[in-house]
Order: sequence, then C-alpha cells, then structure tokens
Amino acid sequence: MLTVYGDHRSGNCLKVKWMLDVLEHDYRWVETDVLSGATRTPEFLARNPAGQVPAMEFADGRVLAQSNAILLYLAEGTAWVPADRFTRARMIEWLFREQYSHEPYIAVARFQRLLAGMSADEIAPRLMQKGHAALARMEAALSGGGWLAGEAASLADVALVAYTRVAGEEGFDLAGYPAVRAWIVRVEAALGIG
Amino acid sequence: MLTVYGDHRSGNCLKVKWMLDVLEHDYRWVETDVLSGATRTPEFLARNPAGQVPAMEFADGRVLAQSNAILLYLAEGTAWVPADRFTRARMIEWLFREQYSHEPYIAVARFQRLLAGMSADEIAPRLMQKGHAALARMEAALSGGGWLAGEAASLADVALVAYTRVAGEEGFDLAGYPAVRAWIVRVEAALGIG
Repeated sequence: MLTVYGDHRSGNCLKVKWMLDVLEHDYRWVETDVLSGATRTPEFLARNPAGQVPAMEFADGRVLAQSNAILLYLAEGTAWVPADRFTRARMIEWLFREQYSHEPYIAVARFQRLLAGMSADEIAPRLMQKGHAALARMEAALSGGGWLAGEAASLADVALVAYTRVAGEEGFDLAGYPAVRAWIVRVEAALGIG
Repeated sequence: MLTVYGDHRSGNCLKVKWMLDVLEHDYRWVETDVLSGATRTPEFLARNPAGQVPAMEFADGRVLAQSNAILLYLAEGTAWVPADRFTRARMIEWLFREQYSHEPYIAVARFQRLLAGMSADEIAPRLMQKGHAALARMEAALSGGGWLAGEAASLADVALVAYTRVAGEEGFDLAGYPAVRAWIVRVEAALGIG
C-alpha cells in the first residue's frame, strides 16, 4: 500500500490526496506537521533528503517527492492526462508554471499569513504583485471557459486549483478574476471536493 | 519546422537547443535578448504571454513554453526518457526540483552577476546558501557515480547540468562537489557539448 506523508494545510499535499481519492487508491496518510519540525527528523530525512512534504512511499520503501511528479505518476494512463501529445505538453507546461510562477508567491504568502502568523501588511509587496500576475495569466487562459489544457479536466487544473481556491484567505481578492472563480467551481466538482 | 526563441546565455534555453541537436531535429533558432526587452514586445507576448524564453513555435503557430515541458515533449519515446515507470517519475521529480530549488538560486545568482553586472558581494547570501544546498543534494545523489535517474543519461541530467556546469562562474566553488564535477563531464559527453 502507498503511504503519503503530508500536511493537510498544504495545497501541494492536498493535490496528491485529491488524486489518490478520485482514482480510488488505497493509501495511508501520515499527517506531518511542517511547522513542528516533523520534516527535519533523521527518520523523515532518510525518506526524503529534501525534508519536504508531500512524499509518497511505496511498499518496498522507495520514496517519490515533488507534488506534481507524484501527480504525473499516479494519473499516468488515466483521463487526467490528455492522450494528445501537444495537449499533454500544454498540461505539463502549466505544471511547471505552477511551481515556478504561482506557488512561490501565492502559497508562500499563504504560509506567511496563516501559518507563520504575519499580518497582511507584513507580506512582501513583490509576493502580492507576482501572485496577481499569475492569477491574471490564468484568467486570460480561462476567459473562454473550459480547462487549462484541452477539453477536459487534467492535472493542470488539479495543480493550479490547490492554492488558487484558497487565495482569498491570504488577501488575493478573486473578484477581478471571474473566469478563474467559475473554473474553481468546475475543478472542485470534477474532484468531488468543495 | 520548429522555431525556438531563446537567449544563448540562458541555461533554460540551452537545454532545449542541446536536446534538439542531440535528437537531430531541424529547427530555426531566433536569438532573443532577454535584457533588451525583446521578450516584452507585443509580437513576442502574442506568442508567449508569459514573456519568457525559451518558447518553441510549431509550424501551425502553436507555442509551447517552460523549458522542462519542452524537453519532455521533444524526448518522448527516446532513450532520454526512462521506460520504467518509477525511474521516469524519479526523472520528473528532478525536473521539478530543478525549477523550484536549483534554478531560482543558481541561475538567478548568475543573472545578477553576469548579466546585471552585480559584484559577488551584492548577491544575496540567501541565494548562495540555497544554491549550495541544491548542489549538496546533487552530490549526495551522485556519490555512487552514474546518473540522476536510472542507469543512463536522462532529461534529469540535461536539466540539472544547464546551470550546474557554469555555477563556478558566479562564485559557487564546485571543488567541494567531486561527484557533481565528474557527472558534468559525463553529461557533456552524452550531449556532445563541452
């Protein structure tokens, strides 16, 4: 059976949980508090030297890290990965964009605000500006409705929705992004969450 | 024919060029100076709204961005992508780690030093510290020789070598990373560069 080490407050961890649930995998979830030092113990570092969650452990002890790599592993051969080569590449383009230009701003702002207890004024303006740029790019891509890659929900939608759906909690007002808001509802329905 | 918009000083662009060359693709390279504003013109933004290179344009006008997404597209079905499912996932884990925990430090330090003309003292200590952490993780993974994912050179090696091989130029002394230095020579040989 798969064992997933994750913090339920982390979008990177939740996306793995959603995919396991929607694909009806059996797995064991080990709640791992990133603030308590649980990812810095010798036991955890032996599993994942990067000291990060999520980390997915196979029955034979091998461990896979990096949330979007885990998603690609789990969803291979399912409808969550487009069969068309270019559409699949577009999905993967969004997965890398998520980790480079979205998560480092929107998730980090969330971490500072909700978990480290900083006030809205303490969040660096650069984080807020770059986060809004990421949301604006999504709004443009979703302006015609639909999904981020192709004609059906894919891993691109799963990865991007994780922090976008809670962006309002850390001060990113989604009022100016109506296509993104409508898309969040669609992705949550596809995943059976909400 | 494929058209690639890239800056030859950028590791993210070079990795795409190396893969096109090693796979013997016909392509047109359009040198695109990121410092001159060439990625901010209306023409370029119509191709890639993210305003980034590399961007790979197909004959029908579709454009794919994000260097590692382009690598995965180009190398699909070749020996650069491991056939084994777990090994492929490990390769992809490294591709995401490269963009999240390596490029933002080592490439950004390089940009500040070589292109923006900052002195070594002006580079933020945090960039240097995080860059060394990324190199230490590679050294541990490569301590037994070999490659980052599986028993042959893969896209993981291509992606990680791009900025690692020039890290010395911006003050990351590689003397403390002998396994990384030996690996650089192997990857350069596999790619026919050096």
